[in-house]
Amino acid sequence: MTLDLASALNDLQTKKPLVHHITNAVTINDCANITLCIGAAPVMAEAPEEVAEMVAMAGALVLNIGTLSKSQISAMLIAGRAANDLEVPVILDPVGAGATMLRTESARRLLTELQVAVVKGNAGEIGLLAGAAGRVRGVDSAGLDGDPVAVCKSLVNAYSCTVAMSGATDIVTDGDRVVLIDNGDPRMGVVSGTGCMASSLTGAFAAGSRDQVCSTAAALAAFGLAGEKAAKRAFGPSSFKVALMDEVAALTPPVLSAGAKIRIL
Amino acid sequence: MTLDLASALNDLQTKKPLVHHITNAVTINDCANITLCIGAAPVMAEAPEEVAEMVAMAGALVLNIGTLSKSQISAMLIAGRAANDLEVPVILDPVGAGATMLRTESARRLLTELQVAVVKGNAGEIGLLAGAAGRVRGVDSAGLDGDPVAVCKSLVNAYSCTVAMSGATDIVTDGDRVVLIDNGDPRMGVVSGTGCMASSLTGAFAAGSRDQVCSTAAALAAFGLAGEKAAKRAFGPSSFKVALMDEVAALTPPVLSAGAKIRIL
Amino acid sequence: MTLDLASALNDLQTKKPLVHHITNAVTINDCANITLCIGAAPVMAEAPEEVAEMVAMAGALVLNIGTLSKSQISAMLIAGRAANDLEVPVILDPVGAGATMLRTESARRLLTELQVAVVKGNAGEIGLLAGAAGRVRGVDSAGLDGDPVAVCKSLVNAYSCTVAMSGATDIVTDGDRVVLIDNGDPRMGVVSGTGCMASSLTGAFAAGSRDQVCSTAAALAAFGLAGEKAAKRAFGPSSFKVALMDEVAALTPPVLSAGAKIRIL
Repeated sequence: MTLDLASALNDLQTKKPLVHHITNAVTINDCANITLCIGAAPVMAEAPEEVAEMVAMAGALVLNIGTLSKSQISAMLIAGRAANDLEVPVILDPVGAGATMLRTESARRLLTELQVAVVKGNAGEIGLLAGAAGRVRGVDSAGLDGDPVAVCKSLVNAYSCTVAMSGATDIVTDGDRVVLIDNGDPRMGVVSGTGCMASSLTGAFAAGSRDQVCSTAAALAAFGLAGEKAAKRAFGPSSFKVALMDEVAALTPPVLSAGAKIRIL
Repeated sequence: MTLDLASALNDLQTKKPLVHHITNAVTINDCANITLCIGAAPVMAEAPEEVAEMVAMAGALVLNIGTLSKSQISAMLIAGRAANDLEVPVILDPVGAGATMLRTESARRLLTELQVAVVKGNAGEIGLLAGAAGRVRGVDSAGLDGDPVAVCKSLVNAYSCTVAMSGATDIVTDGDRVVLIDNGDPRMGVVSGTGCMASSLTGAFAAGSRDQVCSTAAALAAFGLAGEKAAKRAFGPSSFKVALMDEVAALTPPVLSAGAKIRIL
Repeated sequence: MTLDLASALNDLQTKKPLVHHITNAVTINDCANITLCIGAAPVMAEAPEEVAEMVAMAGALVLNIGTLSKSQISAMLIAGRAANDLEVPVILDPVGAGATMLRTESARRLLTELQVAVVKGNAGEIGLLAGAAGRVRGVDSAGLDGDPVAVCKSLVNAYSCTVAMSGATDIVTDGDRVVLIDNGDPRMGVVSGTGCMASSLTGAFAAGSRDQVCSTAAALAAFGLAGEKAAKRAFGPSSFKVALMDEVAALTPPVLSAGAKIRIL
């Protein structure tokens, strides 16, 4: 097996898909901007009255529970059902699942009631949802017991979705294939919203893709590669964030292909 | 006819008006910062219980429907009626009108129930509201059939307001006068929120002005000129955004007057 | 009396406390990022269903009323009571108190129903809450009649809390001790959210501290010192903001100790 990341980016930049987000208030601006940087078009809409209409225009739907409210859960279910009917891929970022009952139960409900294409979370979140001992503190992973790949596969089996676990090495798997991505820089952990931005990119790459392992790996490799480049010219976390977005916008298919550090198990 | 843009900026920077926003969650921070950069004072308040009180302190009210909710519509109507009573100019940015019924109907309702001083949108949004074939994809214009100036005049006639249509060339008209503004840079389209920021500046310039064609043209010329300057020293979209805000803050009346590319039809 | 600011920063960076925010939509991203920059971990959660659980993991709770809604007030009261039960310090930033009844009454209600550890506001807000003639325009102070230190002490007496009044010289007092902080740069007033960021830092330093005068003074000195450093390499307000966050992240205990401009009355 090989993954053609260059084609994945080329397809995205040719299609310029609309990526509908129902997302958190903390990083909503970052998600919009990173979506533009990679060459897609963001739209944020969460009024229950309009989400079904909006998702019908979109190439992907990103659900992020970082500042969840009851109204948002309703909107996510409505938008998600419409997306499922239209075969628009749904990406779920279960931010903080495990930290509170509301987040844990809402993440499980979204996974149960919707056909989610890709779940992307940190080790604690993925572990918790997989029924392993994932630990979450606020919105940060506080660790995971057990083998991370096995935990990811367990979540794949539970919900028939592609699973991405972020970390120093990102893991992407659909149960059959396991891809490890070694791109990235520690500074990404000192900027709020890098996890959310990675999910937005996952949505942008998922739009129109028939292989969510490839599209998700492309998204995470692209983001990590941009982080490596940004780290070379940043003074601190905020200038790093500016450089990170700039570097995402500067990515081209051959640059991504050359810089991706992918291992296929 | 000439437009005295230098005086418009000088008046703004002397008065430092409070600009009350009821706006979207995506770009609310950008709107606050750009308002400060030009020399005005932003306040964001959307609790229906407080908006009438807040707008009474303000020099302008900016309504932006980018992430509309039912509660926000109520707040916009309450604030807008108070603004009308107090002769505080109301600026409407009908973000995404045409993409969903909620946005289209809400924009029309605000235009019908309030006396809006300036409507500023992209070609798709203005076209749709004018009853022409404006097309909107998410929050982006997907084109317009017909002559843009005629479409703007049609919207002026429908609601007795000044209309601004953003684009490579911005159009501002009150039906009698038509002003074309050629300032700007293509990079402004790769940053989320430039349209919203332009509306915030339109609000800042509108405060206390008796000529909304002049104040709106000044706002759009100022923003476009800052974009031209920013493009010279940006690496990518995020450093461009930082430079754009810095350049707005560096504008002075003579710089604006010298750099504005205005044509009066 | 001396204040050991270096130890305060060292403690924070060792503990890396979780700082739970219920805050405004305008600057929520800035608050998250500045919390990360100083070495703590932010979490933003305001669903009434989850705030008591979330605050139980936290080292401090920051309540900021900058874009208040009725639902947020409920969440603040629930979270605040849980924080009080668990002896998690509560920081209140009464943004815009005095501008509208909703803000004034909500700030008073939070101060009355909760045991707030630190109230941090501008001169107008603190003056208004202290029953002096504080004036507020939007979210900005429009001045204060009377002696600022006496006004702060009056608010201390009313609610048994530490009071911080921001300004060119910041004042921190618990009634017995009065600390004046002369760090800062005028550019901080041209960036939206610097007041909110200062409150987030106050929360980060308050976590686990037994001396809220020291922890609050450390937060305000650290932020002001970072502002001084940032001003040396900024072109305008937005590049200043980037530099400000970078400089907060670069602070070390000895740098803070050497650069703090503290007077103890």
